[in-house]
Amino acid sequence: MADIATRELRQPIDVAEYLFRRLHEVGIRSVHGVPGDYNLSALDYLPKCGLNWVGNCNELNAGYAADGYARVNGIAALITTFGVGELSAINAVAGAYSEFVPIVHIVGQPHTRSQKDGMLLHHTLGNGDYNAFANMSAAISATMARLNETYEIATLIDNAIRECWIRSRPVYIALPTDVITRKIEGERLETPIDLSLPPNDPEKEDYVVDVVLKYLHAAERPVILVDACAIRHRVLEEVHDLVEASGLPTFVAPMGKGAVNETHKCYGGVYAGTGSNPGVREQVESSDLILSIGAIKSDFNTAGFSYRTGQLNTIDFHSTYVRVRYSEYPDINMKGVLRKVIQKMGALKTNPAPHISNTLPDQEQGSAEQRITHAWLWPTVGQWLQEDDIVITETGTANFGIWDTRFPSGVTAISQVLWGSIGYSVGACQGAALAAKEQGNRRTVLWVGDGSLQLTLQEISTMIRNNLNPIIFVICNEGYTIERFIHGWDESYNDIQPWDNKGIPVVFGAKDKYKGYKVTTRDELTKLFANKDFCSAPYLQLVEVHMPREDAPAALRITAEAAASRNK
Amino acid sequence: MADIATRELRQPIDVAEYLFRRLHEVGIRSVHGVPGDYNLSALDYLPKCGLNWVGNCNELNAGYAADGYARVNGIAALITTFGVGELSAINAVAGAYSEFVPIVHIVGQPHTRSQKDGMLLHHTLGNGDYNAFANMSAAISATMARLNETYEIATLIDNAIRECWIRSRPVYIALPTDVITRKIEGERLETPIDLSLPPNDPEKEDYVVDVVLKYLHAAERPVILVDACAIRHRVLEEVHDLVEASGLPTFVAPMGKGAVNETHKCYGGVYAGTGSNPGVREQVESSDLILSIGAIKSDFNTAGFSYRTGQLNTIDFHSTYVRVRYSEYPDINMKGVLRKVIQKMGALKTNPAPHISNTLPDQEQGSAEQRITHAWLWPTVGQWLQEDDIVITETGTANFGIWDTRFPSGVTAISQVLWGSIGYSVGACQGAALAAKEQGNRRTVLWVGDGSLQLTLQEISTMIRNNLNPIIFVICNEGYTIERFIHGWDESYNDIQPWDNKGIPVVFGAKDKYKGYKVTTRDELTKLFANKDFCSAPYLQLVEVHMPREDAPAALRITAEAAASRNK
Repeated sequence: MADIATRELRQPIDVAEYLFRRLHEVGIRSVHGVPGDYNLSALDYLPKCGLNWVGNCNELNAGYAADGYARVNGIAALITTFGVGELSAINAVAGAYSEFVPIVHIVGQPHTRSQKDGMLLHHTLGNGDYNAFANMSAAISATMARLNETYEIATLIDNAIRECWIRSRPVYIALPTDVITRKIEGERLETPIDLSLPPNDPEKEDYVVDVVLKYLHAAERPVILVDACAIRHRVLEEVHDLVEASGLPTFVAPMGKGAVNETHKCYGGVYAGTGSNPGVREQVESSDLILSIGAIKSDFNTAGFSYRTGQLNTIDFHSTYVRVRYSEYPDINMKGVLRKVIQKMGALKTNPAPHISNTLPDQEQGSAEQRITHAWLWPTVGQWLQEDDIVITETGTANFGIWDTRFPSGVTAISQVLWGSIGYSVGACQGAALAAKEQGNRRTVLWVGDGSLQLTLQEISTMIRNNLNPIIFVICNEGYTIERFIHGWDESYNDIQPWDNKGIPVVFGAKDKYKGYKVTTRDELTKLFANKDFCSAPYLQLVEVHMPREDAPAALRITAEAAASRNK
Repeated sequence: MADIATRELRQPIDVAEYLFRRLHEVGIRSVHGVPGDYNLSALDYLPKCGLNWVGNCNELNAGYAADGYARVNGIAALITTFGVGELSAINAVAGAYSEFVPIVHIVGQPHTRSQKDGMLLHHTLGNGDYNAFANMSAAISATMARLNETYEIATLIDNAIRECWIRSRPVYIALPTDVITRKIEGERLETPIDLSLPPNDPEKEDYVVDVVLKYLHAAERPVILVDACAIRHRVLEEVHDLVEASGLPTFVAPMGKGAVNETHKCYGGVYAGTGSNPGVREQVESSDLILSIGAIKSDFNTAGFSYRTGQLNTIDFHSTYVRVRYSEYPDINMKGVLRKVIQKMGALKTNPAPHISNTLPDQEQGSAEQRITHAWLWPTVGQWLQEDDIVITETGTANFGIWDTRFPSGVTAISQVLWGSIGYSVGACQGAALAAKEQGNRRTVLWVGDGSLQLTLQEISTMIRNNLNPIIFVICNEGYTIERFIHGWDESYNDIQPWDNKGIPVVFGAKDKYKGYKVTTRDELTKLFANKDFCSAPYLQLVEVHMPREDAPAALRITAEAAASRNK
């Protein structure tokens, strides 16, 4: 079986070409990663398959970038080399697993013969164990495809890509150097990989829909609460139609930011327990029925587990189950259920949502304060953002601050609230900006702290190399502010080496494709936001935003306090 | 058992303090890592235990730095945080495992109660699995110490540190936030951890020594070949005495560079099969008895498995066994065997070693060529190096080029020949330079390529922050040269974004504690090498050394060719 003679193949095709054509078919146009000697000859196949090679500075950043690319594009691919490369990327892939981001991770491996012989090659542990690294990845992969026996390679590839898409999580494809050029049947490519969801059992689906409708019609103050998995499991159309059809007050959890049109009259703001937008907490927690769609109730997504909602008042919609109060309905996908609920629900009792806008809080209006504080900053950012912007916020002051920003319609928000790996946002920005460029002309905006930037700054070089034009705001507040709020307010371990952040793109060879700015006052930032040339993002721009060291968004303070007390 | 009342303790001490005092006891003075909320409160204990916190820019680099620190200092410690932090470092720790470098890796974990409850905390996979990350590290750790039950904590810590030292490999210590402050018995600290090797069975040892001596006395052309494990398993004193007492021609494998005094009359150069120094291959391969000490016969350490030596002519000395021809003697440490061989061997037949010097090759002498080529560079570097320098070379042209450099005495060479993770050397340089500073006034010299530098440049910031003065040579040859030689000579995936490398420390805030240079000709480099101020390394210095894109050391060409053909 293992050696199908090439002459028996109707349309012989090299394994690498088959794999890359499949990636193209599911919508991937650029592949992230770092070259290494076990993947080099695979890279030769990219151009003829219509794929662009990004060439990141290191693998961790490449993984972050693939994650950002997938969040905008729908799915991404990452190529690393055996051992050193894949392990450098493993934190990024784990983050994608944690946050349901589909990345096809292709790992170039030594020749299958070298593996069988347990040769003492570079990039090994020196003990002949060629499975050690793949085994590490198994815990953070939806499926493992170890390409080895020729007869099963095409099936393994198709299955891995399908699992990646359906389960919206990373998959691992091991590609030994000798497998790259093996011939397999290319005729399969005429049939696209089936990416459709397995349909729900119709009787079961109808049953669940009826239960949902019963409670929905009985409710006096129902609300909709949208979270991350609504985005990741692709039910945003259903969410949109549900909001339209029901007219119910609609809220998002922090990880659900950007899932609904925030200019819609039904949109009421962010619900995160004690960290909620004004008026939101009261309405959600007094609701007698929360339609909770794709929830991930992690500490940072709930301002330190400060939800005060009861399961008796909740219907949870998920990709693999629905839960009505305490009744669980396993093996059913929310997509079909939501669609039928919309079709069947008719008129409901509705209440107006709180009004959320980007108006400054009372104490900031007409204030003579010139320092840029978080309370002033985030509504101001909301006034400046444009439709269809992509907004990436780093774990820290930025991804808490953004809760206070009401988005224009079409904005995509990217943040790593659950996994929370600092430095993520810089890599993610590269990937997101590239996907945005491929989609047309969306603007990409990054907010990162001066501490986090130090982990991954080199991906700014990759942005320059790929002619990307994000606007990068670096919050300069002298170190790891989120950690100060958790522990060690004045400890030197929360300090950082002071950098000339504005100078970074210059050193990376940006030349005239770059402009840097430094703002320290509200007037300066307001003026910059009014600058049309700046706003048009004609090239890469980096803005140092100098803010007080001891300032943080209210939601961060609450969440950090909860984390500190849980650590004790 | 789990709750020993504090009142029963004679000298109650917090777990973190106990752990850090043990680290200090075994010679650690600086701890590498990145702060994270699950390790912050442990960091508070460092100063009172006499430990300095380095504060790296990211965890991968911190791991590389700990590796470099351990290679100079003997052992190192690394602190990361749960999930995101430890996974970012895992490639560096795997490298240390592969290359036998002792690092105590301490991972801050969530509260044991949060773990038991499977809480949905940040930095988790969101599935309640709190073992996933530790399980990944198990394959690259000599032992795992999961601190949890109070009664066993001190034993686990002592055992982990001992295993780290004896097996010369990383160990993993999981430190949950609530364990940090638990009280344990401090009286144990009065008895230092026993780091001594378990003694060999004397009868067995004598037996092996007699066998070795029998072959040694019968040999006509015996030679000594020293490799990495002689350094890692701490038998350099025995090696030195063996060379002195025997007068045998002595060679090093690439990973053994720096293990013997290269100014000694018995030293003949690097043996790496077809990549050997002049005259070495002939002598080693015609020898009828090779005393091979601590060999790691990996591809990159043997110029692509090009050894042509027979096991019938070899005695292998290892930390856990000795092999004489085909006879294996397990469970015996080379240290005791070597010591007795030295004592008992008497006079042997000796032959003169080839003469190795830093004289330029014939074709380079008096050449009018001004471009800096590898053939010219490495002997020239050898003329410039000083006694007791630490020389770090990146995997690429540098760590092959250094084979052609004869070191002054006392030089420590650092390179990652087996694991070969690009970017390693920049982190390792930070750690090595810090250990050098702690030891007195050793000079630290780094040779890194412009491609590799892009992976880890931010550790130059850490050097500045810690007032370290390495001399950093950046080989500017437009990309991943080692990979070009393996595959894709003109492919864009082997290109990089061109940087202003000299400007990097400026952007990182080096101010007047830095000087940058750019050299493009032999005369310029010769002049710089003659500059006393430069040579005295008064502050951080970075030298761009511009070299032809298509040039590489001969040994690299041979090794890359072998790798390319093995990949096919």
